[in-house]
Amino acid sequence: MQEDLIQIRDAIRAGQRSAGGEMARCVDIAQSPACKHVFTRAMFDEALAAAAGARPDLPLAGLAISVKDLFDMAGQPTPAGSTVLAHAPAASADATAVARLRAAGGVVIGRTNMTEFAFSGVGVNPHLGTPANAAVTDTPRVPGGSSSGAAVSVAAGAAFVGLGSDTGGSIRIPAALNGIVGFKNTARLVPTQGALPLSTTLDTVCAMTRSVRDAIAVHEILAARQVAPAARPLPECRFAVAKELFQDALEPAVASAFDGALRSLRDAGAQIEEISLPLLGELPAINASGGFSAAESYAWHRRLLDRSVAGYDPRVAQRIRKGADMKAFEYIDLLRARADWIARMEAALADFDGVLSPTVPVTAPPIAGVAPGAERDAAFFALNGLLLRNPSVVNMLDGCAISLPCQAPGERPVGLMLWHAALRDDSVLRIALQIEQRLQSS
Amino acid sequence: MQEDLIQIRDAIRAGQRSAGGEMARCVDIAQSPACKHVFTRAMFDEALAAAAGARPDLPLAGLAISVKDLFDMAGQPTPAGSTVLAHAPAASADATAVARLRAAGGVVIGRTNMTEFAFSGVGVNPHLGTPANAAVTDTPRVPGGSSSGAAVSVAAGAAFVGLGSDTGGSIRIPAALNGIVGFKNTARLVPTQGALPLSTTLDTVCAMTRSVRDAIAVHEILAARQVAPAARPLPECRFAVAKELFQDALEPAVASAFDGALRSLRDAGAQIEEISLPLLGELPAINASGGFSAAESYAWHRRLLDRSVAGYDPRVAQRIRKGADMKAFEYIDLLRARADWIARMEAALADFDGVLSPTVPVTAPPIAGVAPGAERDAAFFALNGLLLRNPSVVNMLDGCAISLPCQAPGERPVGLMLWHAALRDDSVLRIALQIEQRLQSS
Repeated sequence: MQEDLIQIRDAIRAGQRSAGGEMARCVDIAQSPACKHVFTRAMFDEALAAAAGARPDLPLAGLAISVKDLFDMAGQPTPAGSTVLAHAPAASADATAVARLRAAGGVVIGRTNMTEFAFSGVGVNPHLGTPANAAVTDTPRVPGGSSSGAAVSVAAGAAFVGLGSDTGGSIRIPAALNGIVGFKNTARLVPTQGALPLSTTLDTVCAMTRSVRDAIAVHEILAARQVAPAARPLPECRFAVAKELFQDALEPAVASAFDGALRSLRDAGAQIEEISLPLLGELPAINASGGFSAAESYAWHRRLLDRSVAGYDPRVAQRIRKGADMKAFEYIDLLRARADWIARMEAALADFDGVLSPTVPVTAPPIAGVAPGAERDAAFFALNGLLLRNPSVVNMLDGCAISLPCQAPGERPVGLMLWHAALRDDSVLRIALQIEQRLQSS
Repeated sequence: MQEDLIQIRDAIRAGQRSAGGEMARCVDIAQSPACKHVFTRAMFDEALAAAAGARPDLPLAGLAISVKDLFDMAGQPTPAGSTVLAHAPAASADATAVARLRAAGGVVIGRTNMTEFAFSGVGVNPHLGTPANAAVTDTPRVPGGSSSGAAVSVAAGAAFVGLGSDTGGSIRIPAALNGIVGFKNTARLVPTQGALPLSTTLDTVCAMTRSVRDAIAVHEILAARQVAPAARPLPECRFAVAKELFQDALEPAVASAFDGALRSLRDAGAQIEEISLPLLGELPAINASGGFSAAESYAWHRRLLDRSVAGYDPRVAQRIRKGADMKAFEYIDLLRARADWIARMEAALADFDGVLSPTVPVTAPPIAGVAPGAERDAAFFALNGLLLRNPSVVNMLDGCAISLPCQAPGERPVGLMLWHAALRDDSVLRIALQIEQRLQSS
């Protein structure tokens, strides 16, 4: 594992490292080939200056954070990975999440690339280029999305925190594919103010980090609250593994890493029960009229889309357009059906400390197979569906989830996802801390 | 003023009256011609039995409450003023509001008539008959709606509390027209669970009473919370009167009663400022795509409407159908436009203790002019629009409002409405208590 934020911060406070020196290291990496296409706007000079004068007593101690391109930063436009908004008016203030990270001593090293307007979990951006996966470099592989640059910035070592957003997995997918930690908190815990919306119902502002303890520290800053210190000890935990959906079509490498993780947790004394969750089978019918993202993004985009359709990624425009015909009563039905489904899911999961799943069913495939081009659209949408399948269940649940690496040393990254219903964040985080420790020691 | 709940409760506790005797009086009135068409389901025998064994120490001390026909009561169907649901399956449990009133010692004397599915502020029901206004009896006059029977039950003396709901004025309109008190709390303060919905966004569960102090006592039960005891003294209050909309097309009797009330409050030392609220002029554009009630009621009714259209009041079916074509993005736009409008309204009203308005611009007109029949539809819809115009602004504001009588003795009832933004309930109630006292003494 790379050195994490807390380790470096402690070293800075002990006088063994300096924020300025760490920032210089991050800027070197950010300028290296590993970070090609990662930053949509470099802020290296100001970051170096700010780190040099940083206060080590603050929680982020002047260390580098990266900010997904959809967050407002005062004085800059907010293109959200698009070209149609590249010259939009500058934001007058920082998004709440950015402001909180800066107030906690974080120094922004740059805005990070993302899939246009946060659509898709693959990470391909036809306008700005696609950052290559940071963990597997035999050939350029997808970074995962939509927070593609955010993940690579953290995994490559250019930032300690990648601020992003997760509407159907956009934090957890790239975290899993790049071998880092992605925590999607319960949406309501972090303000979305100043983040360009995809789905106002499902959007979650959250971050990727290099360790679970970093995830806890960053969540406390983003949510402006303390995470409860106590949690059930791992040997007393009772986890569910869903028979349905989550384990369909697993790549052998994923199946083997996931099985290995379960074995290790069982050996540590945790109780793991395979359960049937037929409620998962209801999701296609609940979303049959189009789902939240289509309708809510169409509401936001429609005038811009009418004006500037030629500037949109056709794969994105096509998905936004699907929201045009949805009826109000279908949307209202969807809200009600979701609330009812959530209530039944919460009842089904109430006796467990969480559900364990592979974050995504595959490891990162080559970019070449899904690169822009109509002839690869079918492959792109198939991969996209596969990547979003598991994580998006938690967004529908209004729940919380953490993805942490579970592959054996030297293997391609595989994410283990621990998830639960709304507001179980603290327990999920504290248990993930124990899981991480267990997996690293076994 | 009639004896109110608190007065009778105190007399019961002092041994001067008995809950059984009071209930007998209420049942007598409920069976009298004044209450023709008021009850859709009489529960007189069980009410008499329950009152005889009531506990005087409970807040409602065994006194009579009436329940609008749209609330679930265990063992009974919930027709909501319709015939199409007259034989629906019985509810398995009381609505939360009913359960709270019963737990506080309230005894249900019967279910009250309402406009079908709570549509319209006039109070006409073509299936079940229309209760005549309780206050002006020269000729049968409209009771106001949709909580028509609830208002008449309280105004005529058959109940101390009329449990109802207010989506665009359905508590305040009949309260104003019948000369009683109607308090519409901030919607979120009272659970709507077990109430058949009209608009899930705007519906508010609340009640009518004979006095403001009763309104406070009943709100504390419905909201399961205490109303703050302190309030600004009337002579230090600063009220706004909106130049726009609220005073358009006032019937002279209403204008004169309203002016008299303002004069009396000014004489008491209150500061009253006529202000311009151009934000009110935005409402037609915000609601241009159809508004919440149409889309949300269509979502609830559409299968029933398809199956049983002949059983619906054509005036209601026509309004529900307006929700069929609204697009999801229009609904999402409406939610966003409302939130934005609320924020600006709250800023405009922040420095005031509330806004004073006539609750409705007219006194109760004869039923004959708006009785069922296509030839009177135009008159019906014109009157309906006039009655909803003022109170519905507060529902769009997600605010709170109280209507209390302000006419001179012997005059037809005119409602004075004091209203404010969300969660200003306690201040509105405590100031209304002082206004009531002032108006009764002047």
